[in-house]
Amino acid sequence: MYKLIAFDAYGTLFDVYSMGQLAESIFPGQGESLAIMWRDRQIEYTRLVTMSDPNPAGSQYYLPFWELTIRSLRYVCKRMKLDLNTATENRLMDQYAKLTAFEDSLSVLKQLKELGMATAILSNGSREMLETVVQSNHLKPYLDQVVTVEEVKLFKTAPQSYQLLLDAFSVKKDEILFVSSNAWDAVGASWFGLDVFWVNRQGLPFEEIGNKPNFEGNSLSKVLEIF
Amino acid sequence: MYKLIAFDAYGTLFDVYSMGQLAESIFPGQGESLAIMWRDRQIEYTRLVTMSDPNPAGSQYYLPFWELTIRSLRYVCKRMKLDLNTATENRLMDQYAKLTAFEDSLSVLKQLKELGMATAILSNGSREMLETVVQSNHLKPYLDQVVTVEEVKLFKTAPQSYQLLLDAFSVKKDEILFVSSNAWDAVGASWFGLDVFWVNRQGLPFEEIGNKPNFEGNSLSKVLEIF
Repeated sequence: MYKLIAFDAYGTLFDVYSMGQLAESIFPGQGESLAIMWRDRQIEYTRLVTMSDPNPAGSQYYLPFWELTIRSLRYVCKRMKLDLNTATENRLMDQYAKLTAFEDSLSVLKQLKELGMATAILSNGSREMLETVVQSNHLKPYLDQVVTVEEVKLFKTAPQSYQLLLDAFSVKKDEILFVSSNAWDAVGASWFGLDVFWVNRQGLPFEEIGNKPNFEGNSLSKVLEIF
Repeated sequence: MYKLIAFDAYGTLFDVYSMGQLAESIFPGQGESLAIMWRDRQIEYTRLVTMSDPNPAGSQYYLPFWELTIRSLRYVCKRMKLDLNTATENRLMDQYAKLTAFEDSLSVLKQLKELGMATAILSNGSREMLETVVQSNHLKPYLDQVVTVEEVKLFKTAPQSYQLLLDAFSVKKDEILFVSSNAWDAVGASWFGLDVFWVNRQGLPFEEIGNKPNFEGNSLSKVLEIF
């Protein structure tokens, strides 16, 4: 039986595409595209820095997720020929820092705690941005630990990133359920040896590589049905 | 001075988006989207298998590029709700095997040979698919070697992938010019320590991470202007 339920943060507990609404008010007609391309580039940058130097002591090209998020925003605005001045960049990043949680994030964490589970976040996010978004969404009382890949300077899906959960909690691999809405994260965690719940809000097909997730549901709340 | 000019294959010498025309004839109105999403997924899959196990002896999750190309096609068709039967898959993959070279690929390689340069391909592609596409475009006489990451079972931008050029030729790092249309490949090669020419056919901004390329041009032919 599971003792630790570990959640991915961005896209899983917090809605990264909610950025599209603010982006739309700043760049009418382009908000949704910007949010999608921004997210894609952000992930791409994490992969490039880690793949290009997968040294277990940390990649020499590592930059904090916050910094990569700014860089990817700048790239996408250039590509879309949108004028990103400093004020606009700050406005978008301020909102990113306080991304909205999905409506069931708090209640699911709370109920898992009531069931006696340990709970955690395991995220690519840097320490400070994770603390901010957890605080602003009032999730702190329901999380035992917030674990960031900053400690190893290797982004997911590097095996060292998932290993952090084993280092942070006194649990075995098969006592962890890892919850992510990102199919690539589900693939990586499963290859590492964790059981996985894939939150598939949009009804997408799963990837054509890797192991199928152990569980799948169209909302975070469905995680509770396992217990 | 450079002694070896090494080219990325897919997207650089061979036009991956030319697949869109055949895809459009099979799935009217969806060809271009399919070609773009297919390419993106293909690259994503290379990254996931390499990041998830960057073992210098080769990733245990490695699959040949040909296989990942099929898997990514299947994914994208599911996602776009397109009916990909076996005959259609074979038709698309047959054309992928014989992708069209850009109009200046052959003449540029030929002129570099006339200048006394060594020439090579360094590609994520598997051996057999590279041989086929090189043959069908008549490039073989103008290439000293076709180098594939298959030998290390780690995809670009793993440093071991670029190292293959040093192993295959008796040249030093600073005697190699690496040519790629893929900005991420330019970033990876530059981090590895190679000089880079970025073929920027679409006039895109460069990435916001990594080193700027040493050279940039809107076609392969511009490589010749260096000499």
